Amino acid sequence: MPGVTVPRGRMLADGVPYPDVFDAETQVASDEQWFDFWEGLADRYEALGEGALAAGHHVSAGQWLWHASLSAHYAQFMWFHEPDRREAGQRRKVELYRRAAPHLSPPAERVELAFEGATIPGYLRLPEGGDGPFPCVVVIGGLESTKEESLLFENMCLARGMATFAFDGPGQGEMFFEVKLRPDFERYTSAVVDHLVQRPEIDDERLGVIGRSLGGHYAPRSASADDRFKVAVAWGACFDLSDFDSMPEHTQHGFVYVTGLEDLADARTYLQQSLDLSDVASRMRSPLYVLHGKHDQIFSMAQVERFREGFAHVPLVIDVESEGEHCAHNMGQIVRPRMADWLSDHLLGR
Amino acid sequence: MPGVTVPRGRMLADGVPYPDVFDAETQVASDEQWFDFWEGLADRYEALGEGALAAGHHVSAGQWLWHASLSAHYAQFMWFHEPDRREAGQRRKVELYRRAAPHLSPPAERVELAFEGATIPGYLRLPEGGDGPFPCVVVIGGLESTKEESLLFENMCLARGMATFAFDGPGQGEMFFEVKLRPDFERYTSAVVDHLVQRPEIDDERLGVIGRSLGGHYAPRSASADDRFKVAVAWGACFDLSDFDSMPEHTQHGFVYVTGLEDLADARTYLQQSLDLSDVASRMRSPLYVLHGKHDQIFSMAQVERFREGFAHVPLVIDVESEGEHCAHNMGQIVRPRMADWLSDHLLGR
Repeated sequence: MPGVTVPRGRMLADGVPYPDVFDAETQVASDEQWFDFWEGLADRYEALGEGALAAGHHVSAGQWLWHASLSAHYAQFMWFHEPDRREAGQRRKVELYRRAAPHLSPPAERVELAFEGATIPGYLRLPEGGDGPFPCVVVIGGLESTKEESLLFENMCLARGMATFAFDGPGQGEMFFEVKLRPDFERYTSAVVDHLVQRPEIDDERLGVIGRSLGGHYAPRSASADDRFKVAVAWGACFDLSDFDSMPEHTQHGFVYVTGLEDLADARTYLQQSLDLSDVASRMRSPLYVLHGKHDQIFSMAQVERFREGFAHVPLVIDVESEGEHCAHNMGQIVRPRMADWLSDHLLGR
Repeated sequence: MPGVTVPRGRMLADGVPYPDVFDAETQVASDEQWFDFWEGLADRYEALGEGALAAGHHVSAGQWLWHASLSAHYAQFMWFHEPDRREAGQRRKVELYRRAAPHLSPPAERVELAFEGATIPGYLRLPEGGDGPFPCVVVIGGLESTKEESLLFENMCLARGMATFAFDGPGQGEMFFEVKLRPDFERYTSAVVDHLVQRPEIDDERLGVIGRSLGGHYAPRSASADDRFKVAVAWGACFDLSDFDSMPEHTQHGFVYVTGLEDLADARTYLQQSLDLSDVASRMRSPLYVLHGKHDQIFSMAQVERFREGFAHVPLVIDVESEGEHCAHNMGQIVRPRMADWLSDHLLGR
């Protein structure tokens, strides 16, 4: 893909098998081969998953169909210049994860919530063992990261006794085909909460929300607008889009793509108006944890300062990792357990 | 370490965080810095683990102390030329894993079995949920791989409903300091079985054994000698040591080290006499799965043929991975679930 560095840290921390990452770095001779390379891996893992299902090997089926889904994800994740192929890859990712879902440990239950003429798709997972109702962490993706990528982080929450609900909102994943990026993402999150509080497995008094990358905007936005969230995590500091002009070109393309607008200048204006926490931050009541990598090339350190000012009225933890890249994905083994612990401290107590 | 390539595939498949592997490849300027580099990582993870314990974060404590143990393992794993430092690293690895054990998911129970004046150390893990007694997979390490390295493979067995018991036998891990490599490893495995069949949590009619690398010799040896094993897996084909002279120099050093002998020629003779399945193969009664990487630089393809001949009288699966390196560690995401499935097919039925 033109100008895109392989996001090794993110891929490995999210569960892409390392041989695939290394093969992508060493065998993909040109950017144009990228899509087909990953679709080929999706083919391979899909076949393994189907074989496992036929043999009654459900644990392996879940693992391999999940690998297939991740492969299809990375085929299309930055493929904004060919929307038809991107859509095909996106829909394939969704379908592969849907087939993996019942075989994951613990399984993921697909939930489809009707909301204003569209469907919000998500996955609920409950801790194995123990008695509910469980606290629940709502997990939000970013510009191109979706509900199919958070399995390993969900596992960290689940291992600590918290349920998880990962969903795609406006502009994200499969929902993009129904609803583009909008200034009121928080209303979709609240629709998710409306569902969760009706589930007997979930404790409606112990809800948290975490969002990564652009989700580091959506999560605090959602918690500011909905007091049913008792705690929030911004996994990457995105207070507003004032950094837009200095972002990598492919990230700019991605932002324009998810707006559904044609013109860069129009999209830029729309994005900067739509994505700004200034209007909601003062309404926030819950503790907030902000994780940021100092070497983030998308969101600058100025974003961290805006969080510090905008959320000074709530219990605020600012965790800037001096060696961290975007979302500190390059040190996932350290920052991810830490975020999960912080959530569990607030939702389960120590 | 002189002449040792970083075993990237093995390390990542066994749970070493990828940033550490990449740092080892890019920041360790000389072989002599290797030991201190990994000990430094062990320090870092140990401090994180201690902090997590103090904060009541038991899941993170388990993860970080396990990372610390793996780091200490890789400090010393090929450090045969300085036995004092190797012993310090080995003992540190053991101690760190011991502290991680109660916090793993599921926890690992340390077991110490008195046997002929020595102590066989092992860890028993039981599947979470479900009713026992459980089938159990006995997990054996290799020349320098030990019971502290198999956590992720154990997790695959546990997820499929099988308990695991990983132990160090003669010449391995902490037991090396009591008993060097011997020609009767199988007697130590049978001592483990003597313990397992007395445990109410374990179904004594459903025991399997798997060994990796040199354990690909010990596992079939143990199953040949003890009919209580219903199934065996050689994770790497090591029928005998006829390949000794063509092995990498550091592997030869390792073999000499674990014999406790001083002289290379003496050790070579002792090893080739001690490690040969010819005397026991005909007694094997259980199905056997042999996994081998075609590009294995330690055990040649001739070993596979010896398995094919020596075990022709039992149900035999020979799985040679044409892209596989030693133990096919470079394709763990494919071969490891497959071995776990094969074990579960025999111990749990489909």
